[in-house]
Amino acid sequence: MRKDKIPSAESITRDPYTGSRKIYVKGTFHDIKVAMREISLTDTVFKFNNNKTEKNPAVTVYDTSGPYTDPDVQIDVKKGLPRLREEWILKRGDVEELSEISSDYGKQRFYNSELDHLRFEHIKKPLKAKKGHNVSQLHYAKKGIITPEMEYIAIRENQRIQEVQNLGCQHAGHSFGANTPKGFITPEFVRDEIAAGRAIIPNNINHPESEPMIIGRNFLVKINANIGNSAVTSSIEEEVEKAVWACRWGADTIMDLSTGKNIHETREWIIRNSPVPIGTVPIYQALEKVNGKAEDLTWEIFRDTLIEQAEQGVDYFTIHAGVLLRYVPLTAKRVTGIVSRGGSIMAKWCLAHHKENFLYTHFEEICEIMKAYDVAFSLGDGLRPGSIADANDAAQFGELETLGELTKIAWKHDVQVMIEGPGHVPMHLIKENMDKQLKECHEAPFYTLGPLTTDIAPGYDHITSAIGAAMIGWFGCAMLCYVTPKEHLGLPNKKDVKDGVITYKIAAHAADLAKGHPGAQYRDNALSKARFEFRWEDQFNLSLDPDTAREFHDETLPAEGAKVAHFCSMCGPNFCSMKITQDVRDFAEKQGLSEQEALEIGMKEKSAEFTKTGGEIYI
Amino acid sequence: MRKDKIPSAESITRDPYTGSRKIYVKGTFHDIKVAMREISLTDTVFKFNNNKTEKNPAVTVYDTSGPYTDPDVQIDVKKGLPRLREEWILKRGDVEELSEISSDYGKQRFYNSELDHLRFEHIKKPLKAKKGHNVSQLHYAKKGIITPEMEYIAIRENQRIQEVQNLGCQHAGHSFGANTPKGFITPEFVRDEIAAGRAIIPNNINHPESEPMIIGRNFLVKINANIGNSAVTSSIEEEVEKAVWACRWGADTIMDLSTGKNIHETREWIIRNSPVPIGTVPIYQALEKVNGKAEDLTWEIFRDTLIEQAEQGVDYFTIHAGVLLRYVPLTAKRVTGIVSRGGSIMAKWCLAHHKENFLYTHFEEICEIMKAYDVAFSLGDGLRPGSIADANDAAQFGELETLGELTKIAWKHDVQVMIEGPGHVPMHLIKENMDKQLKECHEAPFYTLGPLTTDIAPGYDHITSAIGAAMIGWFGCAMLCYVTPKEHLGLPNKKDVKDGVITYKIAAHAADLAKGHPGAQYRDNALSKARFEFRWEDQFNLSLDPDTAREFHDETLPAEGAKVAHFCSMCGPNFCSMKITQDVRDFAEKQGLSEQEALEIGMKEKSAEFTKTGGEIYI
Repeated sequence: MRKDKIPSAESITRDPYTGSRKIYVKGTFHDIKVAMREISLTDTVFKFNNNKTEKNPAVTVYDTSGPYTDPDVQIDVKKGLPRLREEWILKRGDVEELSEISSDYGKQRFYNSELDHLRFEHIKKPLKAKKGHNVSQLHYAKKGIITPEMEYIAIRENQRIQEVQNLGCQHAGHSFGANTPKGFITPEFVRDEIAAGRAIIPNNINHPESEPMIIGRNFLVKINANIGNSAVTSSIEEEVEKAVWACRWGADTIMDLSTGKNIHETREWIIRNSPVPIGTVPIYQALEKVNGKAEDLTWEIFRDTLIEQAEQGVDYFTIHAGVLLRYVPLTAKRVTGIVSRGGSIMAKWCLAHHKENFLYTHFEEICEIMKAYDVAFSLGDGLRPGSIADANDAAQFGELETLGELTKIAWKHDVQVMIEGPGHVPMHLIKENMDKQLKECHEAPFYTLGPLTTDIAPGYDHITSAIGAAMIGWFGCAMLCYVTPKEHLGLPNKKDVKDGVITYKIAAHAADLAKGHPGAQYRDNALSKARFEFRWEDQFNLSLDPDTAREFHDETLPAEGAKVAHFCSMCGPNFCSMKITQDVRDFAEKQGLSEQEALEIGMKEKSAEFTKTGGEIYI
Repeated sequence: MRKDKIPSAESITRDPYTGSRKIYVKGTFHDIKVAMREISLTDTVFKFNNNKTEKNPAVTVYDTSGPYTDPDVQIDVKKGLPRLREEWILKRGDVEELSEISSDYGKQRFYNSELDHLRFEHIKKPLKAKKGHNVSQLHYAKKGIITPEMEYIAIRENQRIQEVQNLGCQHAGHSFGANTPKGFITPEFVRDEIAAGRAIIPNNINHPESEPMIIGRNFLVKINANIGNSAVTSSIEEEVEKAVWACRWGADTIMDLSTGKNIHETREWIIRNSPVPIGTVPIYQALEKVNGKAEDLTWEIFRDTLIEQAEQGVDYFTIHAGVLLRYVPLTAKRVTGIVSRGGSIMAKWCLAHHKENFLYTHFEEICEIMKAYDVAFSLGDGLRPGSIADANDAAQFGELETLGELTKIAWKHDVQVMIEGPGHVPMHLIKENMDKQLKECHEAPFYTLGPLTTDIAPGYDHITSAIGAAMIGWFGCAMLCYVTPKEHLGLPNKKDVKDGVITYKIAAHAADLAKGHPGAQYRDNALSKARFEFRWEDQFNLSLDPDTAREFHDETLPAEGAKVAHFCSMCGPNFCSMKITQDVRDFAEKQGLSEQEALEIGMKEKSAEFTKTGGEIYI
């Protein structure tokens, strides 16, 4: 039996979402079609008011699922997704197709016939910037160019809120100095934010299948899902399905953290079939190349790995260049030492050679590689705290300062940068992380793992961390790396991936609401209205996970009739809050509208007052 | 077939916790034995340092599971739990045993032979305060009396931290003006807090089976679990097991929200077998007595229900006395109107009769009943927001102000009070809820449902709400009412109850850590140390849910050997962070301790500086 199985049509989830259809919104400046999901709703029936009816407009939501949920698109995993961005990239005239793969390792794998049965069949020749060119979105942005990617993002971020007649009420929010436009996002605003380094668009020219997305604190908060095999588990087939599955539930990017067999081939399959950007930690693969012996790592092996992965299309690299020799002893008395795998590898290398981290000493050479493919930096926090005890210590913050220095160097090369953050942090120390990151790293986007707000709940760390993630998202973190229930215990299976993704969509959306992101509350309002009116199917379809909502409802009241009934299992048929509300409305009307009007004026004043004092709610 | 099944020995979970034993700590001033759980740990083996070993002291934790987890206690559900507090109550000489049940309804049920097969067999005659006496803990506290209950609580809250040689590091925390003693809790401090109304001890003299516990912001944050049957689901047997099950996983109180058949009998079984205080919403049962027609409710029926339940031993009553006629129209334009069941009932009654809420007009009479049994008020938030849109509106805050007035009246009668809070609130509006509650309700303890920080995740509302619950717990909320994954969709089963309880233990503990509650971090430190040293069994046993942690670990690495192995499924056998840490320690030592010492001094300064500026971290 072959241990590694390649994906087939059957192994990939393709069901459309219930009650939804895929729509495509056209661009104005570029010939682009931005994919979104439209959820259609049923009418409200006023049972206690002569069965009057009222239309409920469809709700458009951000869609990360890619072509898989469009029944009109033919998908062949063996060929990969349509190459959406290829034409945009080629049109810029600054790239060339290489005659063959540049990296030694990539060639080795490509020409090894023993791998034929696992290799992705349709590998294209890699693209690379022409000599003297820089193909990063940051480079274009600084030159004042609005790329199709930027326009795509502007349209995508807006979720068609400009077309909504009545967005309904939305709380003003409190954004801690984030600066999202009050109305909607323009392509020019996207360009500005990229140029300022406050946001990144991870999209390698060799991953044209990906739909452009942005990571920055003035945009919707994003989430990342980690997948990947290990020495003891998983096949290529499973990992590709996990990636598609994670996107289905809302992952904005995927990190492939494979450390097992056939990492190179697994990655190719994932990238070719991924509608979202892919991140990796190249040092993991480099370590496999030296049989797990950190001390045997060399700059040359690492460099070859970067090129290998950049030419496959990895969109961002986690690079632990801030783990400096002088910070390593600062972890000696920690409760949990160094818990980042990349951090431990580099610490071990530094100690074994008594030399400075080669990622730091070769940083400018790394930048040269990154800009030739538009790979973004995700500067790794190798010294992040692995326990509440170690939060916000000297090792962690020392490294963060170094990441700030490196950010400046990367920007000098017009290479996009985000900064990774912790980890395990009690609630009251989370804000300090965000503030320090903004300051030390010059507002480059922050990308945190949780943080977990307690250590005592293994098996539930998606929850311990969602608390911290929602908070740091509110404070300004741009992307939240999910944590699954298996954290600390094992590798996530499909169920864990979904639990982690949905949990993090909750955290990200709670953050958007608290920041007052324009239109963020529209979906909440629509769902709450559906809930209040017992439009069960609408409630399910508007929820982050319609399948689970429907299943839970049906556990108690399985009959189809129950899903249109004006009651639920909690209150029983004798008691209807809709009826009571109709009574209240009638009563209020009888009182004349004066009281109601007075109230509304009062509420407006209150809201204005709140907005005014918003900056000071914690005083 | 009889629909309602009574409990049997087999239907109740009694397994002790793995790696733990029940211990009892004696009192100093009273003859009391306070139950706790002690988790024993294995030694640390320094594999990379000559296999040196180091003892790890046992960790004592708060235990809500009652006698069920003590294998030495004989339990007979048909007789109920041992009557722990009976002697203390009788000794005070201010109660009398009634010759029979006082309430009409209670008598009806007691003498109805058709109910013989479901009735709890060993019903005792109720106790009541002697004429002219007040048996509330608040009354004793104001008179300067330290009751055995108060001493029990002081010992229980401390979790033996006074006996720990080295608590290890703990972050200073930020308590927003909460005032927990820096060292440990004394019985006198408990008395002070009760006397000031800042905390309550819900313990009806007719529920002597319960182990005393306290709800107040200067103590550990508590959680409540709701159970109860409905017209469509559940039996007595299931509900009693749900109560025991909820306590096993950490519920500090249980609310019985039954609205189905045999509510009276179900409650008796639950109270007799519950080691934690029981709360109810008496209006639910009153409504059943008038066949679900809110307009048919009367003060007399409600009054009889209060006495019926007080004599069974209910420890706190949710009373929606703040739903005033004038607030009802303020809900007319809400997205989700009135979502509290009690709130809707009272609003409907007010509208039908065009009269003020009878719970408000009869409030002093209610106080008279409460103080004769020591039932505490949980003043209900009948107008809480049921959606993000409705958060912090005029109806909600109007009611809160009225609850503040009622608090003063209850205190005049020496009746204990806590205040219920929302609901659905976006993160940035949570703090305002806490601040306003403290101000309007004169620091009476706050008890909130969540709050849920977004509306769009039915099926995951334990998580949407844990985010808000952790935050409001940190800000000063004393008890968090759990939300299960079934919220909005159906009634929780046993799995949902456990998911809800563990999720809320996480929120409560995260809040304790953030507040800097003395000793709160000790368990985190112990678990993190065990994790870092690959002491898997210790990690499982120290966790909130050892069973799930163990099961998840074993999914990837099921062999027994893997639980002592110095690696895990994530990194594989080639890579050991313990080894790297030993290298780091050796390196640090070689450098001389000077750097380490310098660092420690630096950290101390940092910590002092943080404490100093703690009040201003949000500026």
